[in-house]
Amino acid sequence: MRKVYLDHYATTPLLPAVRDAMLPFLGESFGNPMSLHNWGDAPRDAMDKAREQVGALIGTDASEEIIFTSCGTESNNFAIKGLATALQSKGKHIVISAIEHFSVMNAARSLEKMGFQLSLVPVDKNGVVNPEDVRQNLREDTILVSIMHANGEVGTIQPIKEISAITREKGILLHTDAIASCGNIPVNVKDLGVDALSLAGNQFYGPKGGAALWVKKGVRIIPLLDGGIQEGGRRAGSEDVASIVGLGQAAEIAAVDVVNRMNKLIPMRDSLIKGLTEKISHVVLTGHPQNRLPGHASFCVEFIEGESMLMMLNSVGIAVSSGSSCTSRALKISHVLMAMGYTHEIAQGSLVFTLGIDNSIDDMQYVVEEMSPIVVRLRQMSPVYDKFLKANKGGQ
Amino acid sequence: MRKVYLDHYATTPLLPAVRDAMLPFLGESFGNPMSLHNWGDAPRDAMDKAREQVGALIGTDASEEIIFTSCGTESNNFAIKGLATALQSKGKHIVISAIEHFSVMNAARSLEKMGFQLSLVPVDKNGVVNPEDVRQNLREDTILVSIMHANGEVGTIQPIKEISAITREKGILLHTDAIASCGNIPVNVKDLGVDALSLAGNQFYGPKGGAALWVKKGVRIIPLLDGGIQEGGRRAGSEDVASIVGLGQAAEIAAVDVVNRMNKLIPMRDSLIKGLTEKISHVVLTGHPQNRLPGHASFCVEFIEGESMLMMLNSVGIAVSSGSSCTSRALKISHVLMAMGYTHEIAQGSLVFTLGIDNSIDDMQYVVEEMSPIVVRLRQMSPVYDKFLKANKGGQ
Repeated sequence: MRKVYLDHYATTPLLPAVRDAMLPFLGESFGNPMSLHNWGDAPRDAMDKAREQVGALIGTDASEEIIFTSCGTESNNFAIKGLATALQSKGKHIVISAIEHFSVMNAARSLEKMGFQLSLVPVDKNGVVNPEDVRQNLREDTILVSIMHANGEVGTIQPIKEISAITREKGILLHTDAIASCGNIPVNVKDLGVDALSLAGNQFYGPKGGAALWVKKGVRIIPLLDGGIQEGGRRAGSEDVASIVGLGQAAEIAAVDVVNRMNKLIPMRDSLIKGLTEKISHVVLTGHPQNRLPGHASFCVEFIEGESMLMMLNSVGIAVSSGSSCTSRALKISHVLMAMGYTHEIAQGSLVFTLGIDNSIDDMQYVVEEMSPIVVRLRQMSPVYDKFLKANKGGQ
Repeated sequence: MRKVYLDHYATTPLLPAVRDAMLPFLGESFGNPMSLHNWGDAPRDAMDKAREQVGALIGTDASEEIIFTSCGTESNNFAIKGLATALQSKGKHIVISAIEHFSVMNAARSLEKMGFQLSLVPVDKNGVVNPEDVRQNLREDTILVSIMHANGEVGTIQPIKEISAITREKGILLHTDAIASCGNIPVNVKDLGVDALSLAGNQFYGPKGGAALWVKKGVRIIPLLDGGIQEGGRRAGSEDVASIVGLGQAAEIAAVDVVNRMNKLIPMRDSLIKGLTEKISHVVLTGHPQNRLPGHASFCVEFIEGESMLMMLNSVGIAVSSGSSCTSRALKISHVLMAMGYTHEIAQGSLVFTLGIDNSIDDMQYVVEEMSPIVVRLRQMSPVYDKFLKANKGGQ
């Protein structure tokens, strides 16, 4: 059976060159980079290099502004909690969008329990934040705004540059969760105008244990992990050198390759969108039709459930997701789709295809061919679809 | 030149069997364990196995009580902050020892800034906590006690069982930082009587990115990382499967091998202690003379500085530490030695040898031979030693 992995938002495979870069640090170069003796030298040099590689990917040569973390969720928690608590004497109001990842959303909810106040900026039907809505939510005591760069569930890319023009004018910090975008589209912290940015290696063919938070020089952040003096005293804990090196290598490759990747992914994505929406009735593309991640095709398929489709696609060798992998096993309705105005009923039919550089145009054709009978079969078992047919005699 | 790595407390090399267990998860089994499709199956099964392996190492078959983290520092931060904040409606007083690792100490200090109160239990000259001193520090509003199982700087093993008898009697939670001990001596959570325990794979030939916090069933803990539903909702973030699998494999091997390892390490340690203290004058063994980690030999060498010795030992191929790797580059005087009553002057001469299973008795002889002339040379340059000699004519 053909195997088609279309769940790159859940995680990407490691590039062989990334794995090769990591292996020495799981072998002879096992030392602790903090060590003063020679065993610390190679790990420390490799970390310095990785810091430069990650800096280069996001357009900064001030590599000391990169703080390595263990995962994107840690980067987002660190940003939200660390920046907010550092500024709490100035105010306790935070603004985020209604479609943030749970690692931003729930970190902000935790701050609410500590006496902070939270405002959620709405999005339109395409999942786009209107910068003017951000402005409307700013108050005298607003200390932090966090709007994601791109949404992993619906693929929409946000107008961060326009939002940062507003936050800068007001002197308020702006963090962006660039975990779904970084490595997949060009990301430049200076162009975006942000003060802090989260990224994760496993979104661009790097390791799961390698992620980072970039914090602009001069911006104060309170550590999430207290302890030793690693990462300039901002993130204690023995450094996971192999993962950091892998993150750096993946970043270097992505920086060179990102436009090629986009040029490969966009036609595949568009053929998948065209194929599915033309061949199957009552399928809605979710997220922005143009301004979306290059490998991202997400849909709501009416009258049936995302999980059922996912399981049947799995049985023909196709891996997709029905939302965020962080909640996939919770089987909850997506807060992202709800915020975009989809009904509970339609949001249930969510299906997310995230393409990668190893996919081919033939894979897309295979998906379209396999998907069609699956939808037919599931709709045959669907009481909702039955009801719809009866109400619309003469319809499909 | 001979290479002798005696800094296993900074980090251990990976066992080849551990690396082999990890590699598939850096290759074909790259999937996200949260995924509902087949790509999630092997990673999820491997994580389940790792959870059982780690549980078995610490004497519990309730593997759901194991929460995977990214490093020992995260485990300690999670324990201190998560257990204390979960109980803050009951009280805000925390008790720790004066010689805790910075990841416990500074996490507790962070809680102080949030309105918690902290008491430090003293230690004796050997670095031992007297259980009665713990009792003396307990108050009506004490909600958490954290006393490390063994100290990585001076090797002393604490009477946790006697301490837990007291905390249990009072109904107060007891956490122990077993990062330096777990995998190196038998650790059993039931025997110890604790409610939570931190461990880290890179202390027993596992990977740097694999660590865990064990929390007894029924004990509530507030997450440090908010977000998705991973780790039973207690630690969000994409799981670093390779590191978790490596931790599990290292735990399984340690569980079988721990007594063999001790039998190999203790005679080496004792020969090193004997050799150094007999051959060099004014050398003091720090920590408990008997009740100490099997591979741990720590000293204060009078009249000279630990870092100078470290650098000169490095030049003859010997890796040692002058304290905790988390602070080695800060070159601060050890709070552990100060708490044990050493003067600033003597504590400066701290040197820590942590042996591993790849060391040999010949390594110990090499260290003793090389160390002696180094001390002589450094003392020749030492104004403090010169002063001492003049004051004690006829001395060494």
